[in-house]
Amino acid sequence: MTLAEYDAHIAVTAAEDGVYAARLEDGWRVGGGVNGGYVLGVIGNALRAASPERPDPLVVSAYYLGPTVAGDAVIRTTPRRVGGSTATYAADLEQDGQTRVTALATFGRLGDLPDDVGTTATPPDLPPPEECLGNDLAPPEFLEIAPIQEWVDIRFDPASAGWAIGRPSMRGVLQGWFRLNDGREPDPISLLTVVDALPPVTFDLGRMGWAPTMELTAHVRANPAPGWLKVRITTGNMAGGMFEEDCEVWDSAGRLVAQSRQLARQPR
Amino acid sequence: MTLAEYDAHIAVTAAEDGVYAARLEDGWRVGGGVNGGYVLGVIGNALRAASPERPDPLVVSAYYLGPTVAGDAVIRTTPRRVGGSTATYAADLEQDGQTRVTALATFGRLGDLPDDVGTTATPPDLPPPEECLGNDLAPPEFLEIAPIQEWVDIRFDPASAGWAIGRPSMRGVLQGWFRLNDGREPDPISLLTVVDALPPVTFDLGRMGWAPTMELTAHVRANPAPGWLKVRITTGNMAGGMFEEDCEVWDSAGRLVAQSRQLARQPR
Repeated sequence: MTLAEYDAHIAVTAAEDGVYAARLEDGWRVGGGVNGGYVLGVIGNALRAASPERPDPLVVSAYYLGPTVAGDAVIRTTPRRVGGSTATYAADLEQDGQTRVTALATFGRLGDLPDDVGTTATPPDLPPPEECLGNDLAPPEFLEIAPIQEWVDIRFDPASAGWAIGRPSMRGVLQGWFRLNDGREPDPISLLTVVDALPPVTFDLGRMGWAPTMELTAHVRANPAPGWLKVRITTGNMAGGMFEEDCEVWDSAGRLVAQSRQLARQPR
Repeated sequence: MTLAEYDAHIAVTAAEDGVYAARLEDGWRVGGGVNGGYVLGVIGNALRAASPERPDPLVVSAYYLGPTVAGDAVIRTTPRRVGGSTATYAADLEQDGQTRVTALATFGRLGDLPDDVGTTATPPDLPPPEECLGNDLAPPEFLEIAPIQEWVDIRFDPASAGWAIGRPSMRGVLQGWFRLNDGREPDPISLLTVVDALPPVTFDLGRMGWAPTMELTAHVRANPAPGWLKVRITTGNMAGGMFEEDCEVWDSAGRLVAQSRQLARQPR
């Protein structure tokens, strides 16, 4: 058995105490940088290694200080409080001696949480994946700019995919199905990648450029069931050159397994 | 002219480089701890002192590691990246030598942002303040537990105040008007307090206990106009012993000036 490609891409190697080496894959590039969700998966994987007794991210906040690029990276983790059921860490991802991402995170054990589910949010209403628009339909010049499209299988709801033909809905909503292209099933770490894997929600507002994330906080609320995930991203506050992007991730059992919000700069 | 009480309560005194002394006021107590939004205002004020050229919080993420109590506190700030228009800091609030809150924050100058406003979110529809239910109507035993009520003037929308008479709407929404009781007008720092100043949204789900915040991230998107603020908090994902609480703060000019999301433990 070989590792799934995603697992190989987020793999970390323990160096000194709390310090891990990783190699950011060029395949997760979007424009000039590496996708922020993929980088969050790498940081989450380093923290999982640092926190074997509480291996699941409950909440992670990442501040993107500079562009991450393909190649070697070092993740330095520092425990800030280790309690009974949860532990909070700081983590820095460095490249070329510079901190590119700094993060705080609280880890725990999702399987040990009480099993109450009183979710009142409702999942995206999507046509079946085969009736949606696959990201493999993107034009070659887009794949060149964003090779990340090779690693993810996204099926966009036709109702929020008008941007692909120059007719954005202007509602500020993108939604669709998501899975990793290598067949790897979702887990709490990969959800950190999923919350930032779709194109910026600003595509649906007719702004087709790259939108750099300033900060992203993700809550992981349950172990996801195997299978397709439903993902919806929305924005309601494009103002002052920035916007917020909220993401919900629902698993195949209908559970809201992750929520995130990011603050990003508007595309130029 | 004397300082507004709020300004006195969040005041910090520079000690060594990047380190500030503060005194947490007992008046902001809620149950056994000090209100997390007030503490966020104190941390924000220390960061404003540390960042005079970029004095406005754009985004702050706080991880609550242990209960903050009335009395002396030390805030240690560390620049993580100082750029042109923004600067990112780490900050720890310590009491008795223990870190009680650790935070990351990016500061800038709200007045320098572009003036585009494409907000599609809509403000809460509220009756005028005089037709709402003031928090001064709370029973004396509640004021004893939560003296914070003396410092804030909240007028709850009757439609989301049923919890006060044992009839929560069960929608997971609380909304109302907000101002500081001392007449101090809102500013970017006080907005950090406003986003966590209402009772937990779980009151509207019939859960009247205290809901400890694990993490709270606030985006401050514009300088608020003077006057009453409209505040709405919502939740959609009560599950696994936790819930998320989203907050929107709208100013008297109708601008969405702050948004926050927190992850909290459900009341017992």
